[in-house]
Amino acid sequence: MSNFGFLRLRVVNPYHVAFREARSAAGASALLAGAEEYKSVAEAVADCALVVGTTAVHHRELQHPLRRLEHGARLIRRQLASSRIALLFGSEKRGLSNRDLSYCHWLLRIPTREEHSSMNLGQAVAVCLYELVREASRTPRTAEKAQVATAGEVERITAMLFDALNASGYVRPRTAASTHEKVRRLVRRLHMQAGDAKIWLGMLRQIVWKLRSNEE
Amino acid sequence: MSNFGFLRLRVVNPYHVAFREARSAAGASALLAGAEEYKSVAEAVADCALVVGTTAVHHRELQHPLRRLEHGARLIRRQLASSRIALLFGSEKRGLSNRDLSYCHWLLRIPTREEHSSMNLGQAVAVCLYELVREASRTPRTAEKAQVATAGEVERITAMLFDALNASGYVRPRTAASTHEKVRRLVRRLHMQAGDAKIWLGMLRQIVWKLRSNEE
Repeated sequence: MSNFGFLRLRVVNPYHVAFREARSAAGASALLAGAEEYKSVAEAVADCALVVGTTAVHHRELQHPLRRLEHGARLIRRQLASSRIALLFGSEKRGLSNRDLSYCHWLLRIPTREEHSSMNLGQAVAVCLYELVREASRTPRTAEKAQVATAGEVERITAMLFDALNASGYVRPRTAASTHEKVRRLVRRLHMQAGDAKIWLGMLRQIVWKLRSNEE
Repeated sequence: MSNFGFLRLRVVNPYHVAFREARSAAGASALLAGAEEYKSVAEAVADCALVVGTTAVHHRELQHPLRRLEHGARLIRRQLASSRIALLFGSEKRGLSNRDLSYCHWLLRIPTREEHSSMNLGQAVAVCLYELVREASRTPRTAEKAQVATAGEVERITAMLFDALNASGYVRPRTAASTHEKVRRLVRRLHMQAGDAKIWLGMLRQIVWKLRSNEE
């Protein structure tokens, strides 16, 4: 990260023994010392306008758009000028869970060969960040015009929509968790503009209030 | 390496304890098991037509052309179709020595920021190999027309030229080692064609023979 000038690390529920060791290691940079810890992916990405997950999987029953790194990085670079972006990596062993993925707008895949697609975590991070800075001089300098909603706003909308669906009887108890994740992806695919988020939230809040008050 | 489809690893004087461990580790791929060991850089690159060194240094009194990875990789890709190429990495701690560098035609630099240019070895390798395969579909398929001389041929020419210089009194005993390295770089900058190497070698051999026979 530091090699390529990315200086904000956020970690979600790190394994504390290893993380404390890494922090106190000789040569641990200011970056590692200043890493922010979060209890959930939702909190970690709350102020980000775009959340991009990473996966080693070429073809899985993905609910998300999957972009090759070369192409995905172009989209990220374009938006980096105007908003905060999270690049989400899973653990070395298991990668990102379906729940983790449900916070993502889309997924990034490093073009590894099919026979050996799973990468070392540190190397995967290095490759992704390198792609973001390579040929920096060629990066278009025009920022995206419209500000998109932050992940925090989008998640509030998701929660409100889920409340509404729940209260409306749409959600079946047995499949509630997977429905919640589906809803989360659904909302993220909207790429909602910042100005619109408040309006949506207001509308949904009203719906939920109505549904709840009818229950009583 | 395996992630990006580069399957031939050559190691020069590895630290044997660590290397044996790496080989026997669970998940050690066929690649690591099949790695070839060499006693010297010269032997390791002997059959390669192009030897590219890697360096973290932005500006050192480099005797070599220094190319950013994005641009250097383009040159490598163009030549990969027709000949064998060595990408040379130094040890984690010290990088490549000046002697190591003298076997290189030119050097590659990953565009890290000035404040933190030295990279983890595994990550540096991953980034370089990724750059070689990225947008693989866009790689021009036309091979370079002329075959260039292998590093082994070039080194034989270097040695013969040095012999000639030595025998001619050009080389001062106190600076012989650095002169030898200068000569090595000099010859590599010629990017000699395969057909020409034999001719050069024949000419130099004759010169050396003459110089030596005059000594007697």
